Amino acid sequence: MKRTDLVNNIFNKQSFLCVGLDPDINKLPKHLLDKENPILEFNKAIIDATAPYAVAYKPNIAFYECEGIKGWEAFEETVKYIREKYPDIFIIADAKRGDIGNTAKMYARTFFEHCGVDAVTVAPYMGEDSVTPFLEYPDKWTILLALTSNKGSVDFEMIEDKNGHRVFERVIKRSLRWGSPVNLMYVVGATQGELISDARKVAPRSFMLVPGVGAQGGSLEEVARLAMIDECGLLVNSSRGIIYASSGEDFAEAAGVEAKKLAEQMGELLVKYCK
Amino acid sequence: MKRTDLVNNIFNKQSFLCVGLDPDINKLPKHLLDKENPILEFNKAIIDATAPYAVAYKPNIAFYECEGIKGWEAFEETVKYIREKYPDIFIIADAKRGDIGNTAKMYARTFFEHCGVDAVTVAPYMGEDSVTPFLEYPDKWTILLALTSNKGSVDFEMIEDKNGHRVFERVIKRSLRWGSPVNLMYVVGATQGELISDARKVAPRSFMLVPGVGAQGGSLEEVARLAMIDECGLLVNSSRGIIYASSGEDFAEAAGVEAKKLAEQMGELLVKYCK
Repeated sequence: MKRTDLVNNIFNKQSFLCVGLDPDINKLPKHLLDKENPILEFNKAIIDATAPYAVAYKPNIAFYECEGIKGWEAFEETVKYIREKYPDIFIIADAKRGDIGNTAKMYARTFFEHCGVDAVTVAPYMGEDSVTPFLEYPDKWTILLALTSNKGSVDFEMIEDKNGHRVFERVIKRSLRWGSPVNLMYVVGATQGELISDARKVAPRSFMLVPGVGAQGGSLEEVARLAMIDECGLLVNSSRGIIYASSGEDFAEAAGVEAKKLAEQMGELLVKYCK
Repeated sequence: MKRTDLVNNIFNKQSFLCVGLDPDINKLPKHLLDKENPILEFNKAIIDATAPYAVAYKPNIAFYECEGIKGWEAFEETVKYIREKYPDIFIIADAKRGDIGNTAKMYARTFFEHCGVDAVTVAPYMGEDSVTPFLEYPDKWTILLALTSNKGSVDFEMIEDKNGHRVFERVIKRSLRWGSPVNLMYVVGATQGELISDARKVAPRSFMLVPGVGAQGGSLEEVARLAMIDECGLLVNSSRGIIYASSGEDFAEAAGVEAKKLAEQMGELLVKYCK
């Protein structure tokens, strides 16, 4: 998907919501467990209920991989389902891959060619040749981990070099030599407070994929205030707060209600911060 | 597997060879392509030919994932095959995973419980909570990326902090608070020359998984000279140099010959550097 299409979708829907499809088999509504593929059934219902309010879906591969072959099937079928029924919605494989050049090529081929997603999250630790194979696909996106939402983000992402530049800033700056704001985004956690604006300073035009709103405690208003740009430049993810809004037979309806609430807030924030 | 068992296997076999099982479908011998699962057939033959000389196998998950469901089957069956036929051999899932705590738990469960491997490679970028879920399994190992063998390793792994400590050294030092030399190893590339001894200084007792000998150009002798310790402390990986030694019907035999050559050198190095 091109950047202009993503931006248009955001303004058409008045939402920059990304729904995280992280279906933990132990948390699925009981009545789904006797279906042939409970994860796939769960995802389809969540997608149908939230699609009016979402511009992106982000299946986290761990939740599929842990179910073995059945899980991979559910992942691939979920991508197909979104692609066919909601072709305007951006699909992110949250895989956090990162490996040497020839292996990175295999991962890029898997996610972009075989699975057909729009974007893959990539870990930057190993540097240029672990990232660039993902950047070679036209209209596909690489979403690089920069400043993540978890506690451990202080351990290495915040290491300061001799000039006071932190690792997450170095990651953003250096990677903008390899890609550009039309094929490269950054993960910046909503839990990072004012640091979000430090990330924005080094990536003034780039989209940010922002996890950590909701269950992890980040504030949507703060994220918009600190990092929204004229083309929005944000995809804010919510997983658990939406997909587990109810564990009963009304799980999909409840997910729709939560997604709608977030999208309404987002609409207001677009008016407020996006000139 | 316990560290004492790994060390015993190394001294019994007089080898610290890890064979990388990275089967690229485009490089497999032609006569295997009409088998039901060519990757699995290829792996089995390579394993039978190299098992007398290897103490570890390292399937790189990318090469399986890119074949979809068929690939996952091949990976799981390969692990089972090694486990049943060669129970003393250490199995590493080269997955380079790294995600927030609850997701890292899913990955740990997948590889340790579902697949039953001994070790998983993990990317350190996201810090403590992305690593510790892997460390909670008794007799299982976490192999953290420290100083990798690829060109891009200079981009972020070599960033120096204000005290002159580089990111790869900080990763090793900090992670030794989370795990210990009985459940934590480090990836240190054979292509890094004298830097290997800098990694050894901060991890004096830890095992190192060393890729980059062979196709990537690193020297086995140099690695042993710079980083071997009294309990060996090294697993040196070779993938392409062994598994693609021949593309004909004699591919397994040729792989065995290459593995034997490396193991013989390793035996000499154990005598020379391991007191």
